[in-house]
Amino acid sequence: MLHFIEGGVCAAQGFRAAGVHAGVKTHAAWKKDVALILSDVDCAAAAVFTKNVVKAAPVRVDIAHLFDGKARAIIANSGNANACAPDGEANAERMCAAAAKAVGCQPEDVLVSSTGVIGQRINVEAIEACVPELYAALERSSDASDAAAHAIMTTDTVKKEAAVEAAVGGKTVRLGGIAKGSGMIHPNMGTMLCFLTTDCAISSEMIKTALLETARVSFNRISVDGDTSTNDTCCVLANGLAGNAVIAEKGPDYDAFLDALKTLCTQLAREMAADGEGARHLITCTVQGAKNEESAETISKSVISSTLTKAAIFGSDANWGRVLCAMGYSGEAFDPDKVDVHFASKAGDIQVCAQGRGLAFDEDLARKILMEPEIEINISMQEGTGLCTCWGCDITYDYIKINGDYRT
Amino acid sequence: MLHFIEGGVCAAQGFRAAGVHAGVKTHAAWKKDVALILSDVDCAAAAVFTKNVVKAAPVRVDIAHLFDGKARAIIANSGNANACAPDGEANAERMCAAAAKAVGCQPEDVLVSSTGVIGQRINVEAIEACVPELYAALERSSDASDAAAHAIMTTDTVKKEAAVEAAVGGKTVRLGGIAKGSGMIHPNMGTMLCFLTTDCAISSEMIKTALLETARVSFNRISVDGDTSTNDTCCVLANGLAGNAVIAEKGPDYDAFLDALKTLCTQLAREMAADGEGARHLITCTVQGAKNEESAETISKSVISSTLTKAAIFGSDANWGRVLCAMGYSGEAFDPDKVDVHFASKAGDIQVCAQGRGLAFDEDLARKILMEPEIEINISMQEGTGLCTCWGCDITYDYIKINGDYRT
Repeated sequence: MLHFIEGGVCAAQGFRAAGVHAGVKTHAAWKKDVALILSDVDCAAAAVFTKNVVKAAPVRVDIAHLFDGKARAIIANSGNANACAPDGEANAERMCAAAAKAVGCQPEDVLVSSTGVIGQRINVEAIEACVPELYAALERSSDASDAAAHAIMTTDTVKKEAAVEAAVGGKTVRLGGIAKGSGMIHPNMGTMLCFLTTDCAISSEMIKTALLETARVSFNRISVDGDTSTNDTCCVLANGLAGNAVIAEKGPDYDAFLDALKTLCTQLAREMAADGEGARHLITCTVQGAKNEESAETISKSVISSTLTKAAIFGSDANWGRVLCAMGYSGEAFDPDKVDVHFASKAGDIQVCAQGRGLAFDEDLARKILMEPEIEINISMQEGTGLCTCWGCDITYDYIKINGDYRT
Repeated sequence: MLHFIEGGVCAAQGFRAAGVHAGVKTHAAWKKDVALILSDVDCAAAAVFTKNVVKAAPVRVDIAHLFDGKARAIIANSGNANACAPDGEANAERMCAAAAKAVGCQPEDVLVSSTGVIGQRINVEAIEACVPELYAALERSSDASDAAAHAIMTTDTVKKEAAVEAAVGGKTVRLGGIAKGSGMIHPNMGTMLCFLTTDCAISSEMIKTALLETARVSFNRISVDGDTSTNDTCCVLANGLAGNAVIAEKGPDYDAFLDALKTLCTQLAREMAADGEGARHLITCTVQGAKNEESAETISKSVISSTLTKAAIFGSDANWGRVLCAMGYSGEAFDPDKVDVHFASKAGDIQVCAQGRGLAFDEDLARKILMEPEIEINISMQEGTGLCTCWGCDITYDYIKINGDYRT
C-alpha cells in the first residue's frame, strides 16, 4: 500500500510548517528566506551531514543538539550559509534560541540549517525579529509545506517536496519532506538540505540506522558523493503519532518503514538532480553486471559526474566514448571489451557500444532519444552481479551563468 | 645558462619534423592532421601514459614498442583517437609500419599517438597514403616544428611549443617539444599529447627516471590528475648528438638535464592549462604551509578542479568561500581556522580570508585583479612546510559550446 500522497513536510500527523521573508535575502524582498518546521510533541531525530572538513556553524551546532537523539523543531534559512562566517556558531545558537522561545522548548531541541553565500556574517537579527511572525504562520497544510519548501530555495528553480503513506505494524504511517539543492550538478557543488518528518513510532537508534541506509542509496547517489558543500544536511523527525508499536529493532516493521523512507528520499533525490543548476536533462545511469554493488556505484557516479558526458547530453550527442572514458578513470578495474552501452528515454532505446566497440547506429533516433528531458544511460559489464543506479544532469550555458556571478 | 630558445621539437640537433593534411579530419580539408618526428640516429626513449583502464590502441602499441627503451620516430594524428575503435591495434601498427618503411627503420622503433573522437574506425588508409608526402616534408626548422604542432591540435586554439638550452657535462644540450591538450580544463577531459626531443646523451633508464619525475611536477599538476583520457601520452626521444658524456646515473649532469626538462615541461603544461577548452583565465594555485608536499598537491588540485571556483573566476567573482569548500572536500585533514587566502595578478594582490574567516576587502580591486588573463590563488595553511603549485583555468560558455557538440 506504499504510495505517494500530498502534504509534503506536513503530511505526517502533528507536524506544522511555515516560511516567511525575514530579509536575509536582501536583493529579493518578495522571496521567503526562513522556514520553521515544528512537531506537536517530542521526536526521535537523526541527521546525516556533509563530510567536508570545513563544516558550517549550523552543522556543528546540530551535531551537538542531536547528542540525545531528540528534537522538536527545525529552523532554516536561505541567502547565507553561515559558513566561514564571523560569529558563526553563536549566531546559529541564536537562531535555535529564538525558535525555542517561540515554541516553548529547549534550544537544544531545535535543529538549524543555513544555505547561501559562504564567508559573510548572517543577519541573525533579521531572523530573530521574524520568528514571532514565523511561529504565528505555522499550519498543517500543503500550503504551509509549500511555503517552507520555498523558503529554503537558493538557485533552485522548483521546490522539492514529496510525501508517502505506508502500512507499518498495522497502522497507517506517513512520511514527508522538503529539500533544496540545485547545485548538485557536480560533486563540488552547493548545499543540499532535506528535512523529513514522520509520524512513525521509532527509536532514535533505529531512525538513525534507517536514515544512514537511505541516504546511501538516494542522496549519495546523486552526482559523485556526499562530500559536497560545507552545509549539507538531511535530518528526520519522527514523532510517533501514527500509533504503531515503537520500532526498536530490525524486523518487518523496520523494513516497511525503511522501504517508505527510501521511496521518499529517492524521489527527492531525483528532483534535486533534475533541477541541477541550469540543467535541462535528468540523467539516470544504471550499471549492471559489475563486480559488486560498490563497483557499480563507483562507475555509475563517475559517468554522471563526467563534465564531458554532461556536455554531450546537453548537446544531445550520443558520444558514448565519453561514457567509456569516464568508466575507465573511475578507479575500478574491469575489462573494457565486455562493456555494452545503451541510451534510452521515452523516445526509444538504442545500443551504441557492444563489447567495448562502437556500433553503427541510427543517429537521428539517438538524437531524438537524447532530446527527452529524462535520459537513461544503461551499462552492462559482464563482470558479476553488481547493480547500481545514480542520477545526474547535463551541464549547460545557464550553469555557467548562474555560477559565474552567484555571490554578487 | 638555462634559457628558452626557438625551434620547438626541432631545436635539438638531429631532429626533423613535418605536419600535413591526410584527410583524417574530413570536415576541415585545410587542417593538418598527421605529424612525423624523426631523429637522424637511434634514440633512448621513454614515455608516460594515461592511467585510464580504457587505453587507446596506440598507447598499447607504444608500451610494446618501448620495451627496449629505444625509438627513432613518432607518427601522430588528430581527428580520431583510435580508442574503442574497430581494428584499433592493427591500424596503430599499420601507422608505425608505414612510417618505418619511409624512414628505413623497424616498425618497433616508431611510436604512434592519436587524438580525436573515440569509437570510430581510424582512416588508416589516408594516413598510409600521405606518409611519403610527410616524409618528404621533413625539415629541421621552426616552420617544421610549427607544422607538426598544428597537426596534433584538436580543439586547441593555439599551438603549444617550447624549447630550452642548458649546459650538461660541459656541453650545450637542447630540449624541445610540442604538445596538445585543450581539454585539460577538468580531470575528466580529453587527450594530452606531448612529444619531447633532446640531443642530450642519456641512458634509457635515466631518461625514463627524468620523465617520470618531470611529469609528476608539470603535466600531472594541471587539473586533477593524469588519470584522464584514453590516449594521454608524453614521450621523449634523446639522440645523444650533443656529445656530452652519457648520463647513466644520478649526479650533477642528471640534475642539470632534469632541471631543463622540468623547465620545458612546466612551460608546456602552463600553455595547456591556459588554452583549456573555452578558457579565458590561467589559474595558478599555490598552497604553502601544508602538512607536506603531497597534501599541498591534493589541496591545490582540488581547488583548480572545482567547477564552482572555475565558474567564479570566469565571472571575476572573488568568491573565496568556494576555495575553502574545495579544500575541505579534497580528502586532506587540516584546520580551516588557520587558512589564509589571497587572490593576485598583475593588477595587484588582495587578501580575502584570514584564519578561515572572511575579510572586508575592496571589491573593485578584487574584480580588477580577477579580470587579468593570469590569476593566482595563494593559500597559506600553517600546518607544516608542504608547498605545491598547480595550474587550471576557468569554465566558460565556450567550454559548454565546444563539448556540447564535439562529435558531430
